[in-house]
Amino acid sequence: MADFTLMRDLATEAKTKIVLLVMDGLGGLPRTPSGLTELETANKPNLNRLAREGTLGLSVPVRLGISPGSGPAHLALFGYDPVQYDIGRGVLEAFGVGVPVGAQDVAARGNFCTVDAQGLITDRRAGRIASEKSAPIVAKLAQIKIPGVEIEVKPVKEYRFVVVFRGEGLLAEVEETDPQKVGAAPLPAIAKPALSAVEGAAAQHTADIVNQWVTEARKLIKDEPQANTLTLRGFSSDPNLPKYRDVYKLKAACVAVYPMYKGVSQLVGMDVQKFEGDKPADEFAQVKKIWNDYDFFFIHIKPTDSRGEDGDFDGKVKVIEGVDEALPALLDLQPDVLIVTGDHSTPAKLKNHSWHPVPLLLWAPATHMPDLAGEFGERACTQGGLGRFPATDLMPLALAHALRLERYGA
Amino acid sequence: MADFTLMRDLATEAKTKIVLLVMDGLGGLPRTPSGLTELETANKPNLNRLAREGTLGLSVPVRLGISPGSGPAHLALFGYDPVQYDIGRGVLEAFGVGVPVGAQDVAARGNFCTVDAQGLITDRRAGRIASEKSAPIVAKLAQIKIPGVEIEVKPVKEYRFVVVFRGEGLLAEVEETDPQKVGAAPLPAIAKPALSAVEGAAAQHTADIVNQWVTEARKLIKDEPQANTLTLRGFSSDPNLPKYRDVYKLKAACVAVYPMYKGVSQLVGMDVQKFEGDKPADEFAQVKKIWNDYDFFFIHIKPTDSRGEDGDFDGKVKVIEGVDEALPALLDLQPDVLIVTGDHSTPAKLKNHSWHPVPLLLWAPATHMPDLAGEFGERACTQGGLGRFPATDLMPLALAHALRLERYGA
Repeated sequence: MADFTLMRDLATEAKTKIVLLVMDGLGGLPRTPSGLTELETANKPNLNRLAREGTLGLSVPVRLGISPGSGPAHLALFGYDPVQYDIGRGVLEAFGVGVPVGAQDVAARGNFCTVDAQGLITDRRAGRIASEKSAPIVAKLAQIKIPGVEIEVKPVKEYRFVVVFRGEGLLAEVEETDPQKVGAAPLPAIAKPALSAVEGAAAQHTADIVNQWVTEARKLIKDEPQANTLTLRGFSSDPNLPKYRDVYKLKAACVAVYPMYKGVSQLVGMDVQKFEGDKPADEFAQVKKIWNDYDFFFIHIKPTDSRGEDGDFDGKVKVIEGVDEALPALLDLQPDVLIVTGDHSTPAKLKNHSWHPVPLLLWAPATHMPDLAGEFGERACTQGGLGRFPATDLMPLALAHALRLERYGA
Repeated sequence: MADFTLMRDLATEAKTKIVLLVMDGLGGLPRTPSGLTELETANKPNLNRLAREGTLGLSVPVRLGISPGSGPAHLALFGYDPVQYDIGRGVLEAFGVGVPVGAQDVAARGNFCTVDAQGLITDRRAGRIASEKSAPIVAKLAQIKIPGVEIEVKPVKEYRFVVVFRGEGLLAEVEETDPQKVGAAPLPAIAKPALSAVEGAAAQHTADIVNQWVTEARKLIKDEPQANTLTLRGFSSDPNLPKYRDVYKLKAACVAVYPMYKGVSQLVGMDVQKFEGDKPADEFAQVKKIWNDYDFFFIHIKPTDSRGEDGDFDGKVKVIEGVDEALPALLDLQPDVLIVTGDHSTPAKLKNHSWHPVPLLLWAPATHMPDLAGEFGERACTQGGLGRFPATDLMPLALAHALRLERYGA
């Protein structure tokens, strides 16, 4: 899809309710000797019943073969082609650690690195310095003050951190300072070319502030054994994405525990919920609480991905079983459309996000076309009635099944 | 597909014959307790035999989730991406009620609406006025005369009608007069901007005529209780689509009963057949009569869609069974390629066109690759050898199976 013209033209308001339940990194790979994946192994009577009644398919987050990060993968699920809507790394990392970035703010992703006595880079990732060691260095950076600018710095992981500049007249059109090779010195921040005079001045102003900050920062950390300098990349602001209410005519709520997912949801105009607890049951309880106030509920379950990244097959199975066990509370709300899927695959076997298409279950009793699948699993999904489709087509499908799209043409 | 360059380069003339048999709104949804769709329920030994011998698949008319009107859905089957070839609503509605529109004519879709004493719209659809009440109001509008212009007005349904302006120097580049919200007054017709001087003058001339007509029309209907004014949208002319003979090297005939389908076929250069009767057997008899004169035969069966829109599951089943019963007469002609499909789904359960992919059967004994399907039905098609594909890819597939496409590249 990725072109919102059709959605803007055809989406209408309705009383139907859509739930998008995302188990992060849901897709997996089989282990021996069972030959079953995490999802196929899990005891999940509720999900299997929904699979028998509804329709299965496989979604492709970005393109075949591409393993997405969580930001692009969620954008795709939300209907935004992550290649077309290229959210800067600065914004995504900032949202990932819960640092807000406005349309006038400038966020950058920072990398600690190691330079020699001549100032030439010897390690672009500061020897993949441990998070415990880099956090106090980031704390030092947080002391830097520049008049007229509010600056927020926060660690991400290992050698990575984010910095956000907030103030008048900033513009993110600044080139990265990473020379992208060892043996070279970090570059100064410079304004990107080919801007209008006004934009050029704002970008130059921003580059000046960034350079001031970098100079101070390097003074503060020059005696660190590993992280003795830094580079900045992905200068970016809130990209002003089209919003759910505008393109889909949906009042949407995000029920998630981790900041990254709240951040991406905010970017597309969802209302981020605050609630107690971090279990599926807590999330479903919050959905129940706001059921009458919204049309669309994005529910994010994180630990499927975490256990997959740990290589913990059994742990991931347990997370899926826990979601299945809590599911009746969600089903009691009688959603018109319930989609259960992942944002990408994270097979425990690979301990990493992967490119494998993601199992997807669409259940919409008034409108779904049941298929031949008898359970929810990767292989059942290859035979599913929805076939394999780009994740960006999910929202049009969801709206259609909720009878929220008008007919196209006479 | 939607890019005809490959077709223009590769299509060649041949003696093979292709039949495209469209049962309008063929796709359906299961009913309880059988759990079978209309097509799955129908007793159809001939179609099932073709399904066993040939290849099945599912076609997506426009995009996943989009329920197409009959115009866009047929354009897609004919190979024209209906989003790219956006035939104006005026033209499509006009064809839908059998009003011809030439390349120099300007058609618009009209909506009756209700305005208050201040002239502000209180109901954009005139309370969805019944067709019986709106037809005599349209008859009033038919009296309006403007010197130098021939005007045809015809009711569509409820608050909808079409008006076609025919005369010298008209150009459809006119903005719609519907303000798209209540509480606003209808807009005057104005010429679209950014045209050449010549085009601008023609559009202005057209807008002037439209405004004259609207002024007269409003005088005539101002005392109606509901439909006391009107708006116009979708100003459009025959879009001069690439023609079948040119892009596919096919001499094509349209065998259809309803005006809409004849109209769309004309737009792509088919010869519309006149014949007696409206039953499948009558249509097949006409195909037999012209068998030696054409390469491609588009046969349109309407009542599958009508029964679906009525919510008449059993009626739709009977229509399918009737087509199956008449089919031997068509098979006796020994087409090289026979495609049986719908333009979109119209499940009796939804009483409406839907977005569900459309079952498709391709039978071409010299060239098809049989699959594992044992019957013709929605679920059998999910397992079919053609997979799921955009409807616009059907014509290349048909030409290929008729051995009418040359090799691409050395």
